[in-house]
Amino acid sequence: MMRTREGGMDLKPMDAEQLRESAHKMVGFIADYYQTIESFSVLGQVRPEYLHQLLPDSAPNHSEPLQDVLNGDVSQLSFHFIGTRIHVLNGQFLDEIADVDTKILPGVTHWQSPNYIAYFPFYGSFAGSLGQMLSAGINIVGFSWVTSPAATELETIVTDSLAKLLKLPRQGGGVMQGTASEFVLTVQLAARDKVLKKVGKSALGKLVVYSSDQTHACIQKASQIAGIHAENCRAPKTDSSTNFDLSPRAVSDAISQDTASGRIPLFLCATVGTTSSTGVDPFASLGKIAKLIFLLVLISTKLFSYISATPEGNGMWFHVDAAYAESAYICPEYRHYIDGVEEADSFDLDPHKWFPTNFDCAVLWVKEPIYLPH
Amino acid sequence: MMRTREGGMDLKPMDAEQLRESAHKMVGFIADYYQTIESFSVLGQVRPEYLHQLLPDSAPNHSEPLQDVLNGDVSQLSFHFIGTRIHVLNGQFLDEIADVDTKILPGVTHWQSPNYIAYFPFYGSFAGSLGQMLSAGINIVGFSWVTSPAATELETIVTDSLAKLLKLPRQGGGVMQGTASEFVLTVQLAARDKVLKKVGKSALGKLVVYSSDQTHACIQKASQIAGIHAENCRAPKTDSSTNFDLSPRAVSDAISQDTASGRIPLFLCATVGTTSSTGVDPFASLGKIAKLIFLLVLISTKLFSYISATPEGNGMWFHVDAAYAESAYICPEYRHYIDGVEEADSFDLDPHKWFPTNFDCAVLWVKEPIYLPH
Repeated sequence: MMRTREGGMDLKPMDAEQLRESAHKMVGFIADYYQTIESFSVLGQVRPEYLHQLLPDSAPNHSEPLQDVLNGDVSQLSFHFIGTRIHVLNGQFLDEIADVDTKILPGVTHWQSPNYIAYFPFYGSFAGSLGQMLSAGINIVGFSWVTSPAATELETIVTDSLAKLLKLPRQGGGVMQGTASEFVLTVQLAARDKVLKKVGKSALGKLVVYSSDQTHACIQKASQIAGIHAENCRAPKTDSSTNFDLSPRAVSDAISQDTASGRIPLFLCATVGTTSSTGVDPFASLGKIAKLIFLLVLISTKLFSYISATPEGNGMWFHVDAAYAESAYICPEYRHYIDGVEEADSFDLDPHKWFPTNFDCAVLWVKEPIYLPH
Repeated sequence: MMRTREGGMDLKPMDAEQLRESAHKMVGFIADYYQTIESFSVLGQVRPEYLHQLLPDSAPNHSEPLQDVLNGDVSQLSFHFIGTRIHVLNGQFLDEIADVDTKILPGVTHWQSPNYIAYFPFYGSFAGSLGQMLSAGINIVGFSWVTSPAATELETIVTDSLAKLLKLPRQGGGVMQGTASEFVLTVQLAARDKVLKKVGKSALGKLVVYSSDQTHACIQKASQIAGIHAENCRAPKTDSSTNFDLSPRAVSDAISQDTASGRIPLFLCATVGTTSSTGVDPFASLGKIAKLIFLLVLISTKLFSYISATPEGNGMWFHVDAAYAESAYICPEYRHYIDGVEEADSFDLDPHKWFPTNFDCAVLWVKEPIYLPH
């Protein structure tokens, strides 16, 4: 019970029975939504700023006792990060559902509609929604083991079993986060700090990152955040003659040139399922370049100090971004496309793309997790 | 309909009616959880690795037709990122609810329990859970305006109305993300790139970040990611004589020393509600140091090129991390504690701490949003 400044009115939150009642109404609303989803235009038929005209621009600036909220016409706001605004009126969900119906849904892009065929496939499944409902309902806080051991352990069990499905090397381990973009940054930072620890921080301007012009923009963002100089980001052009795949020759040429000029190859990112054309880079060859040919180049250019600085003293960091397509390689008939994956220092995939997993869920495996805390 | 390789069995996902039925069961489970929450020990009574002994280490390695899943004893896994593992059995939720009951809940830390009094206050409310249920149910994808205009616009409306409640300066705008840690990184990168654009990338090693020994660890993580040298991170010691507040004198001394040595003060972070003691740094004074005294120091040391590089040519970037405590300043009787907030280039708060908002939800306001895309 909390006493407000004005009027001495009591404020009392919902109890479990009111949650039960409201949540059943919410279930009905969501199920009805899916039964009528084809009646919606897939893209919201709204113009920018439409919602500003429909909603007040201020939250109520003083509290109301629950009784007024339950039986009166005063609305109460609740903030939620992915965009629901809830009016609790008469202890019922009528008002906020009307709000969602008439103000929110017209501005929603209906990714779950059977008529949605843009971009990548839909994100999620009803089973995924139910899972999310459970974890939201219990309000799981999972940022370390002790904050909810079950969350951390289940994350490990699920990433391990997913690795088994994909027949990934047994070495290393996996974690889940929101998107593959976060992971590309994470491993690039791990590679950067590992190398700079050996060759000195002032060598930051010498570090070079390799990808292709088809690689997701997250590689450039990650490089910018990590402080890699823009002029040291190599993205050789690709074309239709090689299905827009990154050419191993272009990469090895760039490496030779860079090492001859005293620069330090740091990071190579190959993509399995590019964003623009779902192309698959020849990452087995690229992995060999990252690990073997690269070493020969280094020896010939006498960059010995760098050799011992690379992960396991064995080439530059090789990351495979399989955010979109790797789910396919669970099928034995496609698995051969990722033969050679054991060369990778790290690889990621997004279950929220091909898997029946709701947005957002990304998985990263790292061969030597010890480098992450660096 | 999808045909599997083996046995030619059909695989059919849940329809809206099955979702309705299962979701009602889920609501019952969640409401029952809250009605019995006091029967749980707040901390999970489990040892590390407990869950590995209770769950199989592989997901089923082949699909089953829905009929077998509905009527047989074959379980089907669904992955979800914050830790629910769902077995659908007999089209009912009995099995996975039993799983959650007997395997997951014993390993959950019950943040919502009335007996939970550790760390910061609880994260969320039933209204917040219902909001999350709605957005999870509709499976909102909100990473840009077009992916769901309502999500982006509601985010702006809510951050604007929250700014009004806090009487923040009208300049600038706000966004929501997961945690304040992400925001401290974001604004430090914005400050870094703004300055380096003027003084050259090679000056990275000269940039200095100021905070106190009470500042949340995210400031050091952000500095490390941004490539700020560890020896250029100043965190003056505090003690009980000043309630563990950051001393303006210590900061201005450090600035004088750094500029005299040719280093470039980049970023000052003041905290409103520190993690260890909920201390409130004297940020009105600190803001003046960041903007005015600092300029005098620069002029005296002739670092003119840097002056024009700072935001608006006006001092170093001043960030206020109010992740924990700023919610209190909605109350007019506490608002005076953040007088001077208009000096800040950016400030953040976490509604998932004091607000009835479920984990996770953080808000950042930036005075000059134009610097973020840099």
